[in-house]
Amino acid sequence: PNLTHLTLMGVGASLYFKISVDFFAPLLYQEWARYGAFYKYQPIDLIRKYFGEKIGLYFAWLGLYTEFLIPSSVVGIIVFLYGCITMESDIPSKEMCDQEKAFTMCPLCDKSCDYWNLSTACATGRASHLFDNPATVFFSIFMALWATMFLEQWKRLQMRLGYFWDLTGFEEEEFSNACLDLCVLQQDEKEKLTWRDRMPGYLVNVASILFMITLTFSAVFGVTVYRITTAAVLSISKNESTRSNVRVTVTATAVIINLVVILILDEIYGAVAKWLTEMEVPKTEKTFEERLILKAFLLKFVNSYAPIFYVAFFKGRFVGRPGSYVYMFDGYRMEECAPGGCLMELCIQLSIIMLGKQLIQNNLFEIGIPYLKKLFRKLKDERTEKKENDSNHSKHPQQWDLDYMLEPFTGLTPEYMEMIIQFGFVTLFVASFPLAPVFALLNNIIEVRLDAKKFVSELRRPDTVREKDIGIWYNILSGIGKFSVIINAFVISVTSDFIPRLVYQYAYSQNGTMHGFINHTLSYFNVSHLKAGTQPDISQFEQEVIFCRYKDYREPPWSPNPYEFSKQYWSVLSARLAFVILFQNLVMFLSALVDWMIPDIPKDISEQIKKEKSMLVDFFLKEEHEKLKLIESFIMRDKHRNKGCSNQHILSAHPEALGIIVPS
Amino acid sequence: PNLTHLTLMGVGASLYFKISVDFFAPLLYQEWARYGAFYKYQPIDLIRKYFGEKIGLYFAWLGLYTEFLIPSSVVGIIVFLYGCITMESDIPSKEMCDQEKAFTMCPLCDKSCDYWNLSTACATGRASHLFDNPATVFFSIFMALWATMFLEQWKRLQMRLGYFWDLTGFEEEEFSNACLDLCVLQQDEKEKLTWRDRMPGYLVNVASILFMITLTFSAVFGVTVYRITTAAVLSISKNESTRSNVRVTVTATAVIINLVVILILDEIYGAVAKWLTEMEVPKTEKTFEERLILKAFLLKFVNSYAPIFYVAFFKGRFVGRPGSYVYMFDGYRMEECAPGGCLMELCIQLSIIMLGKQLIQNNLFEIGIPYLKKLFRKLKDERTEKKENDSNHSKHPQQWDLDYMLEPFTGLTPEYMEMIIQFGFVTLFVASFPLAPVFALLNNIIEVRLDAKKFVSELRRPDTVREKDIGIWYNILSGIGKFSVIINAFVISVTSDFIPRLVYQYAYSQNGTMHGFINHTLSYFNVSHLKAGTQPDISQFEQEVIFCRYKDYREPPWSPNPYEFSKQYWSVLSARLAFVILFQNLVMFLSALVDWMIPDIPKDISEQIKKEKSMLVDFFLKEEHEKLKLIESFIMRDKHRNKGCSNQHILSAHPEALGIIVPS
Repeated sequence: PNLTHLTLMGVGASLYFKISVDFFAPLLYQEWARYGAFYKYQPIDLIRKYFGEKIGLYFAWLGLYTEFLIPSSVVGIIVFLYGCITMESDIPSKEMCDQEKAFTMCPLCDKSCDYWNLSTACATGRASHLFDNPATVFFSIFMALWATMFLEQWKRLQMRLGYFWDLTGFEEEEFSNACLDLCVLQQDEKEKLTWRDRMPGYLVNVASILFMITLTFSAVFGVTVYRITTAAVLSISKNESTRSNVRVTVTATAVIINLVVILILDEIYGAVAKWLTEMEVPKTEKTFEERLILKAFLLKFVNSYAPIFYVAFFKGRFVGRPGSYVYMFDGYRMEECAPGGCLMELCIQLSIIMLGKQLIQNNLFEIGIPYLKKLFRKLKDERTEKKENDSNHSKHPQQWDLDYMLEPFTGLTPEYMEMIIQFGFVTLFVASFPLAPVFALLNNIIEVRLDAKKFVSELRRPDTVREKDIGIWYNILSGIGKFSVIINAFVISVTSDFIPRLVYQYAYSQNGTMHGFINHTLSYFNVSHLKAGTQPDISQFEQEVIFCRYKDYREPPWSPNPYEFSKQYWSVLSARLAFVILFQNLVMFLSALVDWMIPDIPKDISEQIKKEKSMLVDFFLKEEHEKLKLIESFIMRDKHRNKGCSNQHILSAHPEALGIIVPS
Repeated sequence: PNLTHLTLMGVGASLYFKISVDFFAPLLYQEWARYGAFYKYQPIDLIRKYFGEKIGLYFAWLGLYTEFLIPSSVVGIIVFLYGCITMESDIPSKEMCDQEKAFTMCPLCDKSCDYWNLSTACATGRASHLFDNPATVFFSIFMALWATMFLEQWKRLQMRLGYFWDLTGFEEEEFSNACLDLCVLQQDEKEKLTWRDRMPGYLVNVASILFMITLTFSAVFGVTVYRITTAAVLSISKNESTRSNVRVTVTATAVIINLVVILILDEIYGAVAKWLTEMEVPKTEKTFEERLILKAFLLKFVNSYAPIFYVAFFKGRFVGRPGSYVYMFDGYRMEECAPGGCLMELCIQLSIIMLGKQLIQNNLFEIGIPYLKKLFRKLKDERTEKKENDSNHSKHPQQWDLDYMLEPFTGLTPEYMEMIIQFGFVTLFVASFPLAPVFALLNNIIEVRLDAKKFVSELRRPDTVREKDIGIWYNILSGIGKFSVIINAFVISVTSDFIPRLVYQYAYSQNGTMHGFINHTLSYFNVSHLKAGTQPDISQFEQEVIFCRYKDYREPPWSPNPYEFSKQYWSVLSARLAFVILFQNLVMFLSALVDWMIPDIPKDISEQIKKEKSMLVDFFLKEEHEKLKLIESFIMRDKHRNKGCSNQHILSAHPEALGIIVPS
């Protein structure tokens, strides 16, 4: 609490600014904001000195997250390799490929589709083993603990930075722009916005968010309709090659449409969230930011994940059964998953959306759009410059002119949002796509330097903002971490074939091996029970087909209750649900244990803080003591020099002068 | 930071002590430590002044907990009344009672037991509806949220008390007795206990805890064996009335044995936990207490709840089925639940253990044992006094003699432990016993005054201890709260008949009503399949019994797989597990929402703290300003009086004297 310090800082501020630009900026560029420096640790303290605490914390967080992605990438690659290695020895996919004529499957569409042999889907069956093996169960437990560990370590790092950057006890309160005119008024006139004033804003808020979410769902539904109708149209095409590639064509185009819709809606939702938050008139800058983030996150989260959730948990579950299919809009059958299982499709969906989003949104948009804007501005400026050329004689533009030509800084929210949505891809569906951390890592290594470059050389230098933590982002991260546990539990138990395999092996298999699993998962259907007009027009099968097979656990045609769900169905369902309970509670328990075992404040920091507290008390006492001495020396001199004159009157007028300086 | 204050406090401390005893003690007794004052709020500030912060926090916590029990008691009573009112209209129990000869049940034991009519169990069937109705589902959700709310409110109250009692920023570090000789040595010689020194202690610890837990389980197992064998012995008794009351006799005696075992082991475990913690040589008093509490809690928790868990989740689940019963020790059949369902038995077990523990341990032990000790000590003292009577002439004993005759204070741990275990009864199994909060409330109203009386007039006045929170107890409470969610989910779904009823009503019932539910839950058994030698010796049934019924979902004898689990079994199991997932995640989500919505720091306190911070800065500046004036006045006088002499040398020797006092 040395007050001269403050004065000195005030005097030195402008000087400091000059130094920091001249000296730090090239240093930052050299050490940090180049792709060539990707292997180096970030100079966090330097970043904080140049950009302020808020941006410093962002890069520290991004650095820690990227670092944490390394072990998870390694484990992810190992899990993937395990899938590759064991693919050959996987009995179910072997049976699927080898027993060529064993399983005659029911047609995939009405009339125009023929019966087909399961062995033709051999390739997808094999591929799905890559992601659908016991190692992924281990990996999703690992990733749940990884997320907890990451958050704990971040808490510690934040604490450490907060200590070294002198942020403990710092609290910010600043009126927001939206509130400024209203709130200052309130302060003066002791008036408050009542709930009557705020109610319309809130109502519009809720209504708009619901509308936006409905919009997202409609988009997903629309793409589904596109997939169903296109598949139906293509499958009656006369072109042989078109017909054989229906699934690939439809899946690929649909995912791309999904991706485009996500990218477009993302931009719209960002603007809508801002508009809605302004309507709420939050009091301080901080609450404004928090509410904006919450809304934008909610909308963008739903937008990014809705198609993935659809594939993971809904696709292929409302198909009905042969002879009693579920139809949409008269005549279009609901879509099924590929024979390899829905997990394979989930994996494709996930990887394309994740990679596409990263490549297009994060890199192309972040590099391309600023570049275009700059170009546009330059062209405009050149045109105006030509006109002014006669009046303006200085040919070399000043530094401030150059700086002004840069793009303005628009806040950290988009940077965080991008990373948080990525964190979701890494944790939420990791059970179906163990390579997600690898792609995230590759992206982030570029991202760190890209952001750095942008901040150092492509944006106007942002105002420094003090901030002691990453605020609401932490809560969002921890929320995603918790949510991921239940999502992974459901992906493993419901989407993948892990549980049916286990049940078969331990309850139904004759000899404890997986032989006969494929046969066990396929139910029988008597072709004569097909509704009139839905039989295949032309069949290439030589013998007449009597029974066709389909993937479901239902009673065979010869049972007393044909096509009802069989006992197997219910026992597998029980096992699936039991697994969810077990998995969720085990992982939650382990996470709580990790959380409890890692202290929030690093030990050296907490000891340092304690030491400083006692030092402060010592210093205070010492200073008071010195003052006492000083005053005593005055009094002594007074007494020595004019002994006739008493100082008593001064001391009695200022009794606190003694009171303050008596150390116990 | 006024230092005179400190001095004054030092001087006044002994005076304060005198005042506090003379003045506070009778006041506390009058206002607080009487049963007559049960309706009054506790004078928390007075308690804190007399006993210190630690005990003050305990009573504040106990007060809040008791207050929170009021709404939950009211809701509990309403739920219970709902059960009473709807009992008449409950179709399943009506069917059970009315259709007298409809269900011939299989014998409950081999040879000596006869077939029986389900209608004879009519009374228990009706009674079980009291606790097994949809309202209990609502109630257990309510109680989970209640627990979260209670913990949140406690955080706020603790914050408020901490603020008013000046505990913010207070940190305690005191060496524990166990560590004292070792740790001080370490401090001096910079030596540390290495893991080699500590390893044996930890090993003994883990081994002992495992042994103790095994002991508890053995006790539960022993009681089970007692129940099985006694039931078997009694049921072949020749006395008619003995035979008809087998179940009541066995259940009652077994619960009492359970209770006695719990009470005895509780005392042993308390001592063991202390011994084990001393072996660990924890460094500070705080860690010592924390570890002791954790161990004692673990042991006592397992001890108190093991028999209840057994009844809730294991009893009656490994019985086998007629014709293939599971036998223990050759010839003793595993025990089944009463016809009313296990929930009824769980309720009886719970109420007797809870009430018995409260009455005996909390009240009898807490009043009786100190009284006996006092009596014993008095007798001993009187005997010695008689001998010393000749030498000692003062007949009226001094106050300190009287005080010394009181029992010493042994810490708050037993008081907290008692309440925490009770909190467990109130939250963990609330789905099966909605009256638990009522009994807890009644107990606590007495408990507050009992503890108060004990502290004021029966114990030596404890040393005051500063403490800013209730420490590890909070974590334990929050852990119990979280654990209770999953336990209640399982009690509702697995122990109660709630899910089977729902499944019957919506999936199997012909007309959507509950008619026929009893018939649906009973499987058929062909009497001729009974193993030789296990048929009833004498049957009082007039017609020959061909099929008897038993409570399970199994295939009938005429199916292709007789006595295998039926499809109903698996579908009900799926529904049960799905309910667990739904319940757990819903309640966790709601709790998180409540947690998030209630801020941890009350708004008035956080504003007060902010205000004080700025006041402190103002005060600091003002004081420095006044000092500056004072020094200036000295200098001025100096200049006026002897102008020839310069003060410059003093100021140049103490440049900080100016530096400190220049306000910006």
